[in-house]
Amino acid sequence: MREDFKAVEYKEGALVLIDQRKLPHSLEYVSVQSSEEVASAISTMIVRGAPAIGGAAAYGVCFAAAEAGGDIKLFMEKVEALKASRPTAVNLAWAAERVSKVYLETLSEEAALKEADEIVREDIEMNRAMGKAGSALIKDGSAVLTHCNAGALATCGWGTALGVIKSAVEEGKHIRVYADETRPRLQGARLTCWELVRAGIDTTLIPDSAAATLIREGRIGCIIVGADRIAANGDTANKLGTFPLSIVAREYKVPFYIAAPYSTIDLSCPDGRHIPIEERSDEEVTMIEGVRIAAEGVKVFNPSFDVTPHENISAIITEKGVIHPPFSEGIAKIFTL
Amino acid sequence: MREDFKAVEYKEGALVLIDQRKLPHSLEYVSVQSSEEVASAISTMIVRGAPAIGGAAAYGVCFAAAEAGGDIKLFMEKVEALKASRPTAVNLAWAAERVSKVYLETLSEEAALKEADEIVREDIEMNRAMGKAGSALIKDGSAVLTHCNAGALATCGWGTALGVIKSAVEEGKHIRVYADETRPRLQGARLTCWELVRAGIDTTLIPDSAAATLIREGRIGCIIVGADRIAANGDTANKLGTFPLSIVAREYKVPFYIAAPYSTIDLSCPDGRHIPIEERSDEEVTMIEGVRIAAEGVKVFNPSFDVTPHENISAIITEKGVIHPPFSEGIAKIFTL
Repeated sequence: MREDFKAVEYKEGALVLIDQRKLPHSLEYVSVQSSEEVASAISTMIVRGAPAIGGAAAYGVCFAAAEAGGDIKLFMEKVEALKASRPTAVNLAWAAERVSKVYLETLSEEAALKEADEIVREDIEMNRAMGKAGSALIKDGSAVLTHCNAGALATCGWGTALGVIKSAVEEGKHIRVYADETRPRLQGARLTCWELVRAGIDTTLIPDSAAATLIREGRIGCIIVGADRIAANGDTANKLGTFPLSIVAREYKVPFYIAAPYSTIDLSCPDGRHIPIEERSDEEVTMIEGVRIAAEGVKVFNPSFDVTPHENISAIITEKGVIHPPFSEGIAKIFTL
Repeated sequence: MREDFKAVEYKEGALVLIDQRKLPHSLEYVSVQSSEEVASAISTMIVRGAPAIGGAAAYGVCFAAAEAGGDIKLFMEKVEALKASRPTAVNLAWAAERVSKVYLETLSEEAALKEADEIVREDIEMNRAMGKAGSALIKDGSAVLTHCNAGALATCGWGTALGVIKSAVEEGKHIRVYADETRPRLQGARLTCWELVRAGIDTTLIPDSAAATLIREGRIGCIIVGADRIAANGDTANKLGTFPLSIVAREYKVPFYIAAPYSTIDLSCPDGRHIPIEERSDEEVTMIEGVRIAAEGVKVFNPSFDVTPHENISAIITEKGVIHPPFSEGIAKIFTL
């Protein structure tokens, strides 16, 4: 299975991003060349998905180095601004700090760029490894439910949750996918369906609320989603809607898997209560395609993520292998590998 | 608290309906004068909400009587067509049969019309009685979560679930409401918010998936929703999304109430597995405001309703009082009142 697009790619001095807000209508690319433009592309969700954000931020740090021209204080300010562009995704800070460290040690823009390239290369390699490790969990002939988009578009290539599905298909398994549309931004409808249909995978789009009926009726073999941040005890922040899905899965004993690179695990975060949850604008809920759908005067609660407690998670699929409960032990162990 | 609109009203030979597809942008009325037009208004969701559909269907039968001009076979065909316009709502069949019976017994169009008027009058009276019975369940100062629209717009006036909330507010209680937007048709965002803001009630709109986070954080005092059909054992069909909400409510021990007139109870239906579930068009999920949001080639699963098992329901609020578990007994008892 080959992919004919890249969400994040550095080419001739510019970072080229798919403008994911335009999908599935058109596949358009945006070229950015400054750290401010990278931060803005992240906060406005031209690029989204924790690993893809990490890749973009890595190049953002390279631009910051060039812009600061050796002024370390200015460089650090620019890096901080990049890190603040989406507060929940831990890969963002991880990637930014990794490139930043190389630059601070070498003061070489070239070395920083090499490190950013390495992050992208590793991400694709990790997703392939995750796919291989996770595909063993998917039964031939089964249906997999996923939420939001944890695919090639959310990463530097192949994908995490969708990467596992694609790896299973590549191995010859017959897999059908149910894709939650994922309100309010509809990444499931807009992105996951586009990506899976393009890959030739049998895909059914559902309103988020329909997942429970499918699960109760025994029509879902397992659920696989990505993650934006995983605490040391396994509590996982992911796109809003992941948590209620995990409750229904547990009630009806359907395996619930997280697929994420181990850089998504934040050991400094003991549990889900310590993960900052970004709230996004009211307009994501009150407007649709530029049309206001809710009465004026209404308030809005629109958190971008929710936290799935580790008790609801059957396993965490990483590039270093599958972590089973108890997660505190499994996670601690993987960091020693 | 007074309402300055009626979803269903018979005036000078015509049935006047609020075109609910136009809310909240504009309050427009549609005048229909034939049984076919009534069936079409129901299936296209100009009028929606089980009790409002019942009211509209009642007048549809009156039109059918006039159109058939004494041809009983033709009359019955027209009544059947009306009943088929939405398969899940039991009030539709109940109201149509009630007016139809009066007409068949009297062959008087006037008597049929009087019966239809009576159904509307009773519906408002029942909702007021339901409000009075149910408001005792709502604590002063608490927040109530609701799904879809079970308000004045869904009935002939006052509302079922929202009627209970409004009755509590009318009694002087300070109540905040969280309204699920209710994908795919967004009746919560479009209708519930419009109705509650108009009534001066503090209302917060949320994506359906955000309810679980609010519930876990202890921010919801109770959940009240309407119903389209209640089986003899208490299993309840209501708008898609009610069932997963009930699972989360039970997990976190938040009371989950159904508010519905007892005509919603279908004694001929032993349990939820026997309730027919209408599937609606793919376009409700693949298109938004006329814009296609999902890739071509994707399949869709879009059931209009789901079934909440009676184990997840704390009580059923009817105009004859509050039914507590075990529901089989409570429901059987209410039918002897």
